[in-house]
Amino acid sequence: MVDSIAAGAQAPGFYRFKVGEIEVIALHEGVLVRDRPTGFVPNATHEEVGEAYAAAGMARDKLTITFNALAVRTAGRVVLIDTGLGEFGPPGTGQLLGNLAAAGIQPGEVSAVVISHFHADHILGVNRKDGQRTFPNAEIFVPAKEWDFWMDDAQMDAAPEAAKENFGLCRQVFGKLAETVRRYAWDEEFLPGLTSVRANGHTPGMSAIRITSAGETMMFVADITNNPLVFVRHPEWQAMFDMDPVETIATRKRILDMAAAEKLRVSFYHAPFPATGYIVKNSSGYEFLPALWHAD
Amino acid sequence: MVDSIAAGAQAPGFYRFKVGEIEVIALHEGVLVRDRPTGFVPNATHEEVGEAYAAAGMARDKLTITFNALAVRTAGRVVLIDTGLGEFGPPGTGQLLGNLAAAGIQPGEVSAVVISHFHADHILGVNRKDGQRTFPNAEIFVPAKEWDFWMDDAQMDAAPEAAKENFGLCRQVFGKLAETVRRYAWDEEFLPGLTSVRANGHTPGMSAIRITSAGETMMFVADITNNPLVFVRHPEWQAMFDMDPVETIATRKRILDMAAAEKLRVSFYHAPFPATGYIVKNSSGYEFLPALWHAD
Repeated sequence: MVDSIAAGAQAPGFYRFKVGEIEVIALHEGVLVRDRPTGFVPNATHEEVGEAYAAAGMARDKLTITFNALAVRTAGRVVLIDTGLGEFGPPGTGQLLGNLAAAGIQPGEVSAVVISHFHADHILGVNRKDGQRTFPNAEIFVPAKEWDFWMDDAQMDAAPEAAKENFGLCRQVFGKLAETVRRYAWDEEFLPGLTSVRANGHTPGMSAIRITSAGETMMFVADITNNPLVFVRHPEWQAMFDMDPVETIATRKRILDMAAAEKLRVSFYHAPFPATGYIVKNSSGYEFLPALWHAD
Repeated sequence: MVDSIAAGAQAPGFYRFKVGEIEVIALHEGVLVRDRPTGFVPNATHEEVGEAYAAAGMARDKLTITFNALAVRTAGRVVLIDTGLGEFGPPGTGQLLGNLAAAGIQPGEVSAVVISHFHADHILGVNRKDGQRTFPNAEIFVPAKEWDFWMDDAQMDAAPEAAKENFGLCRQVFGKLAETVRRYAWDEEFLPGLTSVRANGHTPGMSAIRITSAGETMMFVADITNNPLVFVRHPEWQAMFDMDPVETIATRKRILDMAAAEKLRVSFYHAPFPATGYIVKNSSGYEFLPALWHAD
């Protein structure tokens, strides 16, 4: 029977916790490892960045990215925050639907999909390869400023060639949904208990989401850092994914300071599953303290 | 079907990872929350300690302790490192066997049980309430120095009254096993790939365990800290569970320094499940960086 270990599967990648009376479920979407390009962090050396990855147990010369969304059950609704890569990602990704099912939720039960920003790993799961919507009964909520930027043809025409791909992806994902998508503003409670927080810099309209119930609050901080094991500890480091590096750093510090001061539970899209914990400020940056796992 | 979320159980508390060719499985035993006694950390104020717990998302005036063992599959054996509280713990604990089963391992398949030290939460799971051994086919490995101390009646007689209870527990757990228990020395490779490391202070004979395979190494660090979310960040803080506070701090720093210098994956018995990650030294102490979760 010892062979059952070798044959055994990993535990499913979901984790439930409570915020007041709301149930939140961390959902693992997968891990991607690829070569780290020179200049990934323009304001640090390749060696410094490699050392930071190695210190967290990742390959020194690779770019290791983990992806984790959230499901939120509030007021009788199941709300999904970010969709993962769906059927369009590389091997190692695309696990969100399986982990959602393991947590007992079928796609048709999702009544709202909230998008934090319009990068591929957050939006491609909106549709399936056959063109049908992955969550057929879900109203889709997007940051108004994100929509205004990415769906503006003048912005697309003015963008450098390398940046045009993402404009195309946005049209592929949202083109047929323009009439029905609900655009939320910053500081708007757009669903009961869910309030957007300005988090621009990484993209022009990125939003963090405060989730509040019965006097308790947590915050989904989206991509205020790429891998927080690296960028929480080196808060001044820019990454090539960040469209406005200066605003990215200001937003990162503002939101990490908010989390530390309020002792908020935070969930990062790019932290190790279950990707949720607390922020403490220290003399050189911040620490991410993983939240305690409770079986009940 | 939305009710399936409320009704749904937590994901099982096991997590598999590889060390070389060895499979290691983190096993959640549970969480205990009780009032934190005044003087829990004799060399810090109650307020400072409360602030440290609150910063990590735990109740300010409680003592929150999480318990996590390891299973290791090496050379055709399943080795369990520490047993949890078995059938003798308070509500919230005693989950180890269920999580072991979720990972596909029945108690009869465990061929070795390795004990790090002789505190109740590490040894009570050796036997069941009916007096039978929980892992009937397992050889039991204990630190020789731990055995020499706790099983010595002269030490028991000389101990303060409050300390006598643990001597009694040791006799309850190991009394019938004296002839068969295998006592391992520090720095001994007592099973293929498993080598003990001196970690005394918390108890006189506590041992960490280095696990090595195919050029890769990790270390189970047992109780070099109680809750590492607090004591890794405050490495000078003593806890009332530590029998020799000065030696405890020296051991803690020696092993955390070793982990940081060698970039070793470590597993803490008292960290949040899956309780495994990496150590980085900073200007005021250390940071615990959770390891990346991989589904494969």
